[in-house]
Amino acid sequence: MAVYTDVDDDDLRAFLENYDLGAPISCKGIAEGVENSNFLLRTERGQYILTLYEKRVDPGDLPFFMDVLGYFTANGLTCPRPIADKNGVVLHILAERHCAIFSFLEGLSVTRPSVAHVRAIGKTLGQMHKIGQTCPQTRNNPLSVASWPELLKEALSGKARDSFPNLFPALEEALADLPQQWPSELPSGLIHGDFFPDNVFFLGENVSGVIDFYFACTDFLAYDLAIVLNAWCFERDGSLNLTKSSHFLESYERERPLTLPEKAAFPLLCQGAALRFLLTRLVDWLNTPANAFVRRKDPNEYALKWRFHRKTKGFDDYR
Amino acid sequence: MAVYTDVDDDDLRAFLENYDLGAPISCKGIAEGVENSNFLLRTERGQYILTLYEKRVDPGDLPFFMDVLGYFTANGLTCPRPIADKNGVVLHILAERHCAIFSFLEGLSVTRPSVAHVRAIGKTLGQMHKIGQTCPQTRNNPLSVASWPELLKEALSGKARDSFPNLFPALEEALADLPQQWPSELPSGLIHGDFFPDNVFFLGENVSGVIDFYFACTDFLAYDLAIVLNAWCFERDGSLNLTKSSHFLESYERERPLTLPEKAAFPLLCQGAALRFLLTRLVDWLNTPANAFVRRKDPNEYALKWRFHRKTKGFDDYR
Repeated sequence: MAVYTDVDDDDLRAFLENYDLGAPISCKGIAEGVENSNFLLRTERGQYILTLYEKRVDPGDLPFFMDVLGYFTANGLTCPRPIADKNGVVLHILAERHCAIFSFLEGLSVTRPSVAHVRAIGKTLGQMHKIGQTCPQTRNNPLSVASWPELLKEALSGKARDSFPNLFPALEEALADLPQQWPSELPSGLIHGDFFPDNVFFLGENVSGVIDFYFACTDFLAYDLAIVLNAWCFERDGSLNLTKSSHFLESYERERPLTLPEKAAFPLLCQGAALRFLLTRLVDWLNTPANAFVRRKDPNEYALKWRFHRKTKGFDDYR
Repeated sequence: MAVYTDVDDDDLRAFLENYDLGAPISCKGIAEGVENSNFLLRTERGQYILTLYEKRVDPGDLPFFMDVLGYFTANGLTCPRPIADKNGVVLHILAERHCAIFSFLEGLSVTRPSVAHVRAIGKTLGQMHKIGQTCPQTRNNPLSVASWPELLKEALSGKARDSFPNLFPALEEALADLPQQWPSELPSGLIHGDFFPDNVFFLGENVSGVIDFYFACTDFLAYDLAIVLNAWCFERDGSLNLTKSSHFLESYERERPLTLPEKAAFPLLCQGAALRFLLTRLVDWLNTPANAFVRRKDPNEYALKWRFHRKTKGFDDYR
């Protein structure tokens, strides 16, 4: 969560003349999104989010993200809708950054999701996957199973081995086998890739918004399901909350029933999803100074989840 | 600019039940205020600012700040109005911090103030000083002339002498004389103390809001005027913009004409105002790691202003 770039008031006023949004009334940098600078922008027309893309986002990916958000919102999902300027253009430059304006979404993210919350996100995720299967846009997953050995190497370089001495032998062993075991064919489509509680807003028990699609890509839908189960259905001690996971899966399957191969692969997909976040957290942990403003996320949380999934026998262990 | 503390959604909902503001609709941490955590809060009733006081603010001062803001807003100044709960109480505890809710102020702060902007703030500052003279609340200025020798000592400890080798002999010399020369009696009252461009919002060329009263205290009104002249009327190269300063002072004097002793003391007050920010910036510079999220403010900017004021002969050099 960070604001990296300041926007000059004169520049903002001139920039907004490209749009049909009226003059700016207020513009506050907000602590949302780790990769970009985000502003809550009020204009004479209403409330919007202005996003400036910082260096961690590849500009070549931006048209894909805009198209995906446009497609999802056009199909009824409550995610940020890119606002086009008077010439129909979405992506612009402001303060020397690529940028775009989006619709504002009401709601609060939840710290302690209830069963009702996980039911609600099961439904939203199922709807998103159904819509995503028909979207013509595709993007390879840069953090797919093929990338994990490289991530492990990166995590191992430097002081990683000292910080997490018990983790690395098991990780190396697992990554020797996992790519071969990984399914080669399952129902695919657009996945969110980072559907964590931070990125979902609620009004009461209903999902009012899903944000931060900057990990969106094409991959197995059930792998995204596994990511979300990891992020929403575990206790702090690393044990699965079976009530939540069964409600979550049941609610998802009302929108998109899982195929038999998806169910068979589910424990492995959950292992992989846990590994993917364990590996990126290990890399970030070692590259983030302890006093930096961005909060480091604990790799151990995902080590516990990963170990849990290595012991499950099948889909029925999750419901 | 920073958000230090997260507010849990359940805690926020429970907290708002004390108020007549309805349920929360959204709550975004905003990059406003260096000392506190600020949130842009939307409820069923409207838009507000929620401030959580972090450790740099003395809790004993909070009732004074609330009273001052209440007094100013009751007398027509556009500053944050503290919102009382159902029992008339303004100060509360949330996320283990003292906190309060304030009215939301529209407007944008300006990066490059125009002559019209400095005329507008001259008028607002004059109004604020007139109102502040009748306010029964008082608070000693913890950063007054008496505190500067101590600040210099703090700046000198550690590596300061190495970073700014040319500055310190002159500073020591100046601080040997300045406390004796400082006026002992001038019109006093509530001063803002930190009336910088960051803390003033405009809609067009009109002041729509003044924020961040956490340096407010009782002191010479003309000293506050000197602080504001330093903050708004200089070029980046350290030279005074005489057009801006004369418009600023003329506009201020339409609200509150300066007395002869105030005019006579003005160059010295300007020197002092420059010194005060030079000293705190030196202290902060040496205590802020280069990679910290809070941006370090350049002490040299205020060294240049200080040197300028040491060469002026009288009030007429400013208009």
